[in-house]
Amino acid sequence: MSVEGLKAKIKQLEEELAVQKSINAQNAPAREKIAQMSSEVVDSNPYSRLMALKRMGIVDNYERIRELSVAVVGVGGVGSVTAEMLTRCGIGKLVLFDYDKVELANMNRLFFQPHQAGLSKVAAAAYTLRDINPDVEIETHNYNITTIENFNHFMERIQKGSLSGGPVDLVLSCVDNFEARMAINTACNELNQIWFESGVAENAVSGHIQLIIPGETACFACAPPLVVASNIDEKTLKREGVCAASLPTTMGIVAGFLVQNTLKFLLKFGQTTHYLGYSALTDFFPTMQLKPNPACDDSFCLERQKEFAAKPKPEVVEVSPVVEEVVHEDNEWGISLVDETPADAVEVTQSKPVGLAHGVDVAYELPAAESGSSGPTVQDTDISLEQLMAQMKKI
Amino acid sequence: MSVEGLKAKIKQLEEELAVQKSINAQNAPAREKIAQMSSEVVDSNPYSRLMALKRMGIVDNYERIRELSVAVVGVGGVGSVTAEMLTRCGIGKLVLFDYDKVELANMNRLFFQPHQAGLSKVAAAAYTLRDINPDVEIETHNYNITTIENFNHFMERIQKGSLSGGPVDLVLSCVDNFEARMAINTACNELNQIWFESGVAENAVSGHIQLIIPGETACFACAPPLVVASNIDEKTLKREGVCAASLPTTMGIVAGFLVQNTLKFLLKFGQTTHYLGYSALTDFFPTMQLKPNPACDDSFCLERQKEFAAKPKPEVVEVSPVVEEVVHEDNEWGISLVDETPADAVEVTQSKPVGLAHGVDVAYELPAAESGSSGPTVQDTDISLEQLMAQMKKI
Repeated sequence: MSVEGLKAKIKQLEEELAVQKSINAQNAPAREKIAQMSSEVVDSNPYSRLMALKRMGIVDNYERIRELSVAVVGVGGVGSVTAEMLTRCGIGKLVLFDYDKVELANMNRLFFQPHQAGLSKVAAAAYTLRDINPDVEIETHNYNITTIENFNHFMERIQKGSLSGGPVDLVLSCVDNFEARMAINTACNELNQIWFESGVAENAVSGHIQLIIPGETACFACAPPLVVASNIDEKTLKREGVCAASLPTTMGIVAGFLVQNTLKFLLKFGQTTHYLGYSALTDFFPTMQLKPNPACDDSFCLERQKEFAAKPKPEVVEVSPVVEEVVHEDNEWGISLVDETPADAVEVTQSKPVGLAHGVDVAYELPAAESGSSGPTVQDTDISLEQLMAQMKKI
Repeated sequence: MSVEGLKAKIKQLEEELAVQKSINAQNAPAREKIAQMSSEVVDSNPYSRLMALKRMGIVDNYERIRELSVAVVGVGGVGSVTAEMLTRCGIGKLVLFDYDKVELANMNRLFFQPHQAGLSKVAAAAYTLRDINPDVEIETHNYNITTIENFNHFMERIQKGSLSGGPVDLVLSCVDNFEARMAINTACNELNQIWFESGVAENAVSGHIQLIIPGETACFACAPPLVVASNIDEKTLKREGVCAASLPTTMGIVAGFLVQNTLKFLLKFGQTTHYLGYSALTDFFPTMQLKPNPACDDSFCLERQKEFAAKPKPEVVEVSPVVEEVVHEDNEWGISLVDETPADAVEVTQSKPVGLAHGVDVAYELPAAESGSSGPTVQDTDISLEQLMAQMKKI
């Protein structure tokens, strides 16, 4: 189409939009923007229960949240709830990335509603989020970050997308595939950008979040997942009549963990957990810290590791491992504690790769579990990291 | 503007137009009712990702959820999300109880939207929930369950409110005060009705859920909370310019735990956790089981205890306490585990009663914490249960 043709098209769309907006006048924003967060306890103050965190001694300076910018990559079952929680908390700015459309098949997760079916996820999300809290600035990008052109633009928005025009304060990965996670990892290693990875297993009953500080903690390429899709995307799987299971509970909980740790990290309260797992069948929550891999494939990860090694460190207090004693004393309350953690629920990987769907493969052989082992420990393996990496590359 | 710029502008306008058009379609029902849950993997099937739980080997008979009825008492920060999750999961029927109105001050939690301010919570919730899933039957009661007249009606709806006209399958308590919890407890003990209690601390950073099986586990009167409001209701507190803090994260996570364990209990998969706590500052999740108190004040609780004692029991396998060994071996992955649980984060009570708001008191003296103790253990106390109960009654 010619430039004139494109301009005419724009004019036509603008007119149609004006008509639709006038019909929807009753849907005008439900409240005006609020210039400053107030602690006043009145029914009309949407920030009273958040500002109360200061009086309760939990957060020193809650208002700082208005200056912060967070990118959410993937606006599906976890990402949409993540964006909603941050919006309701009054975050300064959200930058949303997704290239998918809302479908009725998404209605078993929170946030999207059936009348939004067919809309792009970012447009539908931005509309709802602005209605919930007009004080939040929302920037949307309706594209796949893994193509070269989009990837460069994605990098630029991470670097310049904050309220002040600088880098965003945090990137939250809520994507559902290996390729997109690797793209985020590559960008964040190069930009030295701190981010959280999140994930939910395809059987819907486990998930995790993981904080990645380039050079300081393991990046996504340092410790790749054991199971990856074998070059078959979700659309192909769906065409073949197979899809992953999902639950609003698991996804809501993972989004809750992600945003809660985001708030702790950005507003400096409590302890930010580096890795938090969730196993729904037994209510088991493994935590751990992962060191970067000195043989990581990502050259920027190695560069960040060198920078981190050269940095002066605060004195580390040696913590000796604490063996927890389980106390089963009789007491007058009639209360007793029961260890509900089965020995086989403590692997670091999200879930055992049993019953894998068609098109999904184990990336390499799982080492046989040592019989009789218990407690939250990382599976030991006889295969060297180099061998594993070589096997990864073959996929 | 460049051709790319014009094309981007067209794309943006087209998306905005689609959103505006979707709003006009909002008043029409978004989808027809669906007679039977199908596993078919098409974009238009809202149940495909739930029915996939069968193929994944997680749930044997997911469709059974359509025959189940659940009462949700309290439709606030936890209850509204609980109702939404169950609705999206395709529960047969919900019976909702609340007497409060939606306010802008609720917008820091999920579910309600600013344009609903002023509506009753049950009416606003029912409207949204029916739009999300018209297959769910929703019954609402806009009253306070603690008045005598309403309490009798509440009892009747618990007893006869299911799809078949019999008792509901489960009662979920999502209320925010002691009086309402005691009313639910009284009703459920008398009706021999299994229920879940839930709660979030007023500093917004901890919460819990607890399964109560009359006669078999502790009821709410068997082990009353350490801290209760001293006859000052929330309205008075608000008038005095004080309100509890709350976060969409903590409330979403507690709702997620509540519904996940509801699904496990009703659809018979995984292990239902009897008590699950959540401490947000350290990501600590205590679990325990509470036996009923043989000196409970509730006469129906004592009756249920007698019935349970008389029941034939399945043989109990003695489980010896497992001492978890922390493994810190060097391994080729460069992975190490760090115990992130501080010794002072493991009390069974929700949170330390520091910084209590005006109008809230400690019901009795907390025993001094034993110094040096660690691990998830119940605080021991020198006070007898009778003394505690006597003190409770004085309040």
